[in-house]
Formats: sequence, structure tokens, C-alpha cells
Amino acid sequence: MEVMMLKKPTIVILGAGYGGMITAVKLQKSLGINEANVTLVNKHSYHYQTTWLHENAAGTLHHDRTRIQIKDVVDPGKINLIQDTVTAIHPENKKVTLENGELDYDYLVIGLGFEAETFGISGLKEHAFTIGSINSARLIRQHIEYNFAKYNNEKEKKQERLNLVVGGAGFTGIEFAGELANRVPELCKEYDIPREKVRIITVEAAPTALPGFDPELVEYAMNRLEAKGVEFRIGAMIKEVTADKLIYEKDDQREEIPTNTVVWAAGVRGNPLVEEAGIEANRGRVKVREDLRPSEYDDVFIVGDCALIINEETNRPYPPTAQIAIQQAENTAANLKRLVQGQTHLEPFTPDLKGTVASLGSKDAIGVVFGDKKLFGWSASAMKKVIDNRYLLKLGGIGLVLKKGKLNFLNL
Amino acid sequence: MEVMMLKKPTIVILGAGYGGMITAVKLQKSLGINEANVTLVNKHSYHYQTTWLHENAAGTLHHDRTRIQIKDVVDPGKINLIQDTVTAIHPENKKVTLENGELDYDYLVIGLGFEAETFGISGLKEHAFTIGSINSARLIRQHIEYNFAKYNNEKEKKQERLNLVVGGAGFTGIEFAGELANRVPELCKEYDIPREKVRIITVEAAPTALPGFDPELVEYAMNRLEAKGVEFRIGAMIKEVTADKLIYEKDDQREEIPTNTVVWAAGVRGNPLVEEAGIEANRGRVKVREDLRPSEYDDVFIVGDCALIINEETNRPYPPTAQIAIQQAENTAANLKRLVQGQTHLEPFTPDLKGTVASLGSKDAIGVVFGDKKLFGWSASAMKKVIDNRYLLKLGGIGLVLKKGKLNFLNL
Repeated sequence: MEVMMLKKPTIVILGAGYGGMITAVKLQKSLGINEANVTLVNKHSYHYQTTWLHENAAGTLHHDRTRIQIKDVVDPGKINLIQDTVTAIHPENKKVTLENGELDYDYLVIGLGFEAETFGISGLKEHAFTIGSINSARLIRQHIEYNFAKYNNEKEKKQERLNLVVGGAGFTGIEFAGELANRVPELCKEYDIPREKVRIITVEAAPTALPGFDPELVEYAMNRLEAKGVEFRIGAMIKEVTADKLIYEKDDQREEIPTNTVVWAAGVRGNPLVEEAGIEANRGRVKVREDLRPSEYDDVFIVGDCALIINEETNRPYPPTAQIAIQQAENTAANLKRLVQGQTHLEPFTPDLKGTVASLGSKDAIGVVFGDKKLFGWSASAMKKVIDNRYLLKLGGIGLVLKKGKLNFLNL
Repeated sequence: MEVMMLKKPTIVILGAGYGGMITAVKLQKSLGINEANVTLVNKHSYHYQTTWLHENAAGTLHHDRTRIQIKDVVDPGKINLIQDTVTAIHPENKKVTLENGELDYDYLVIGLGFEAETFGISGLKEHAFTIGSINSARLIRQHIEYNFAKYNNEKEKKQERLNLVVGGAGFTGIEFAGELANRVPELCKEYDIPREKVRIITVEAAPTALPGFDPELVEYAMNRLEAKGVEFRIGAMIKEVTADKLIYEKDDQREEIPTNTVVWAAGVRGNPLVEEAGIEANRGRVKVREDLRPSEYDDVFIVGDCALIINEETNRPYPPTAQIAIQQAENTAANLKRLVQGQTHLEPFTPDLKGTVASLGSKDAIGVVFGDKKLFGWSASAMKKVIDNRYLLKLGGIGLVLKKGKLNFLNL
């Protein structure tokens, strides 16, 4: 036993999203610095809450509220922080290639997040925006503002500058449309544009908005958003996006919306680096074993959007949510501790779904909690903030909640 | 005499810039509503202080500080306000054509302001911005921000997004460069861009910056701006502007600056509607008689940027400043009162130059006041604010100073 302890194992965590950050924070607490070398690799010096990005993109919340400097919650004296971009994973050699270097590992945690899945729709990749990072979110915010700023500078008014199209009325699309509905009146005031000139149009291919949600909640959400001026095109397939229009097909009719702003919120896939590493995956998501390791490798764990686990009740995959990523990270950190301490039995992962709440702009939301309790309006909105704050508490304690939390939940 | 009073003369004022607004406000005070019908025509519902627009364009001052709703200072019960765009003036028929109507007048005041003069430089009109209105100023602000927002979203970093070029180191160019120097650090913070990547480059064709200013003041201004990171290309002729570069020639060498942002601050001309009306003008400026009427018409007054008057001491035209426009308007309002009241003798206009102060960003400026007193730094900056506040006092009384004034001049 003593001999084994002499060589400290190296744990490398790729990505400081929900999964990577919670893994790092849990290991920092549970492992002594003599037990393992832990390295966290991330492209930026900061972590961000992906579930808040739609607010940054709409311009209703500043992105500095959404991001957290990694070193503010991860102690660089205990965990080695590397700011770099992962370019390749070589699990057969236990190596990771970075833009500016290479790392060896004994155990690897992959938490590299998602990318947009564009399903081959023509022009979508080139012309649509996606809400995927601080950079892309603030670009969307500025893109919308820039178009509003240009509108009154042109003799011939261009409606495409004021038509904002959201691709997808799923969770993210609905949340983003809700924020836009709150933001547009501010933008109209800022740029002297009559509110009625601006359109927010949500295009959804499925036969309903918020597929998978309770119909009563869906109806509430649509009514509330429509009352704020959001239009819905349901059962409408996007066919093509260009620099100044979107074409969709509904009931065998082709329709065109002049627009410079399409925000695609209808499909994500796991990071392609995972497949490129030779790990079997479907759209970048790996069907992991019950302890979150891919079938091919015992020294690799996958958490978050790159991991696919099946809900046995419905026989369908769990959606890749922050909630599940966080729980996977906690499970993985505990299993890594077992491995480092020489145990061989790993605990299986079991999701513990607390509920789902989708915001509809400020002070309004819908959700399901405690299994089947439906929430509407301010109570759902308050619950959403409670969930957000619980995460911050888990990540960085009460100090972080006070610094970055959404503390106005009693003041609705 | 009584018979003449029965038909009230109609006075039409075109443009609510410095000249038009002061004419209107003075007439509102000095003429009874039974003496004349006064109409003020303006494109927007608001007046703005052209001399503050460079701050709005840089993003250091919000444009709502710069503009004033016309009805907040002009009483619509006394003066008829028309929000419309002038499309033609027909002085031979005493008519003005608007986009949505036509007006007859007995007396006309033309205060239609300036346009950029691009001297036929290739691409300048298409690709350069000019600081001419609230709309164009906030577009510049957003254009710069949008380029900063895009920078980190592109794999291949484009330096042209971060090179800000100011065409001209005259009064406006220097003031704008000074504001940009203050704004850039904020933008760098907002968009995670290292300050040293951003360049502010001022290109001036004349052999000196601030031509016409005292050399000691010019040196002070250049030193202070250079210390804040502004680069100067003096004696450099702009040859061409495209969407992503500017080409200039200096010492027979052609140089290229990659840039998406060229702000042209090196030439203005009077509104072309004046020439189109058949009034003789040079670059839109009419050499008016000493009572500010053009030689062709006795019922037309021209104030502000469209009027050209010669400084007899130097035998050169006075530059078209806010200060002179305001004084011309006061003179014109007094002369209109004389005409309405049946007098035939009009008072000649004599400019009373109080001085000139150019700001170099916050808390710094240069200027000449009281004929030959040079000011530097905080005293010049304070003087600039005093001048700005005096105008507001004249326009709308102490209430307007408190609402829109620059009141932090003691807190430097």
C-alpha cells in the first residue's frame, strides 16, 4: 500500500462547465494534496452558467453576472489551472493535446460541453447565431443592438433589422424569446423605434411548443409570451437561412421571414473531440456505463453534455441539463476518490431529478417540481432563482451566492 | 397701422439646431401671439447639441443627455411645431416643401445645419462614418462595440476590428479621439480584449494637428492624447477608404491601415437644400449680408452652418461654431421682431467671440478665452462645461441646466 502511494496519480479535468467545475471543487475538498495531482483545463479563465446565457444574449443580464473567475472557487494551490484549448484526446496513450502543450493523465474527466447541431439546414451554420458561450451571447446582444442602431440611419427602412427569429420553441428557445420580449421595449426606447415595428418570431418544427412539457404549462407559456408580442410558427420546418431571411415550410407552404437575426436554439450535440478520440458516440454523446465511464476505457469519465444516459422509466435519454451534469460530477468526484485510494468498486450514477423550470422573462416562469407539482408565474420564477442560487452555494459557498446570485426572488 | 396688424405675418424656421432653436425661443419671448404666426420645422421631435455628439459616438455620454425634446423648451401654444423633413425651398414663391406637406411664409429662417464634405475621396462616403446627428452618433458607438464583440468570436483574429481611425485632427477629430481614448479601456474590459491590441489613429492632412490653434496648445493636446494611446499621422492625405482599410499618403509613401471603423471629422459643408433653392452658395454656405440675409432675398435669414461671414481682422470666414449660430439667431430674432412691428431698419450682426475650448476626454481640455488667455487641463475642462451650461440656460432656463447640464465641473 505504501509503495502505491508514492506515485501520486494525475487527474485531468477537461472543461470548466458545470460538470468540470463541480468535479474540481469536490476533489479539492475530498482529496489531500498528497493523494493526487489534479489539473483543470479550460479555454477561458472563467466558468459560466450556460443556463443564464440566454439572458446575456438578450441583453437583460450582464455577462459578468453569469461568469465566475475559476480561481475564485478553485484553489490554485490545490488544483493546477491551465488556460488553454483542448485540440485532441488520445485515450489509448493517456494523453491530451492542447493548443500550447500536452498533458499525461492517469484519470481523465471529459466535461467539454455542447455545440450547436444544425441538422444540415442550409445556411444555418453560416448565418444563425447560437447561444453557447459568453462570447457568442454578447455577440448576439450587440448584433441585435447594431441592427436597431442602423435602422433609423437608412433612408429605405429594412424590416429585416427588426425581425428577430428564434429557431426552436424548446426550453432554450422559449426562455430566450421571453427575455427578448422584455428587452425589445428598452431597445425601442434607446433607438427611437416604435415597438409595433419589431417582431419576435419563434419557429418550431415539432407539433407543439415545449415538446415534452405538460400541455397546461405549454398553453400558459405560449399565452404569456404571445401577450408580450412573441409570435409562434408551430409545426414549421426551417429550410434555409441567409444573411437577410429565413425560409420555413408549414403545411406544405413555403414562407419567408426577412431577418438579419436568427438565433438557433433547437439542437445541440456533444463536443466533436470525443468522437475524434475514437470513443463511440452519437452526435457527440457517449452512451456511458452506469459509473459514467465509456465502454472502451476504465480511466475516463464523461460528465455533462457529452454523456448519454437512458431514463429507464421512459426508455429515452435524459436531456443534457445542468442539474444532471452537476450530479454526474459529484458521482465522478466520489468515484475518483475511491480509485485514488485504491478501491475498485465504483458507485453507479443515479439521477435525482428535482424538477424543471423554464423562465418566461422576468417575474414569470413555468415548471414542474417534486415529480408532478406544476408551477406558474411568480412561484415558478422564484423557484428558478432558488435553483440557480443552490448551484452557486454548491460551487462557491454563501460568498458566491451573495456575489453572483439572483437575490431578488422575494421581490417579485 | 391697424390695418397692417390684421394680417399676422407667418415666420417659418427650418431646423431646430442651435440657430433655429434660439430663434424660436427668442421669438416666443419677444413676440405676442397676435403679432405673428411662428412655425418651427424639424426632422425629429428633439433638438440636440451637436457639440456633444462626439461623446455619444464614443459612448462616453448617453445621447439622451445630448438631446432635448423641442416641446420642453418651445411652447406649442405659442409656436407651431411641425415634425417633418424639408425637401425643397422655393424662395421666389415663398414656399417650403416638406415630405408630407407644404408651407407658405412671409419670413423664412434657414437653420438647416451641415453635412459631411468628403472632397471626393474614394470610398469615404460609402465606408466612413460621420458624427452628424443622434442617429449617426449612436450608430458609431454601436459599430465600434459590435466589432469588439465580434473579435473574440473569430478563430482568425482581425486587427481591423480594433483599429479605430479618426479622419482629421481638427477640433472635432481631436475631441473625438480624446473621448475614444477614455472609452477604449471600458470596451476592452467589456469584451475581454487586451488594451494594447486596440489602436486609435488620427490622420490629418494639414502639417499640424488643430490647425489655427496656438502651437503651445497643440503640443499640449498631442502630448496628452499620445499619453492616452492616440497615434497621429500628421501631413497624411487620406486617399481611399474601403470596408476594411484606409489608405493614406505621407511624404510620398502610401500607407495602409486595416480598419473597419473610419470616422470622418475633417470637413463639413452647409446643407445642399440652400444651393438647390437657387441661393448662391459655396459648399452650401451662403455669403450673407451683414443682417444675415442672402443677397437675393429680403425675407430670408440664414443662421448657423449655412451662413458664411467673414472675419474682417483675418479676412477669412468665421468657422461655423455653435457660439456664432446662437448669436446669429439672437440677432435674427431681434430683426424679425423689427420687421413684424413694421420697422425697416435691421441691426447688423457682429460676432462676439468668447473663446474656444476643445476637450481632450474627461477632465482635460485646451482653450483660448477672453481673446488671448490660454487654458490647459482642468481649468479648460471646467470652462468647457461652463460654456455648455450657459447655452442650456439661454435655451431653457435653470431647469434645463439642472436636467441636462454638465454639473460635475467643480468635481474634477
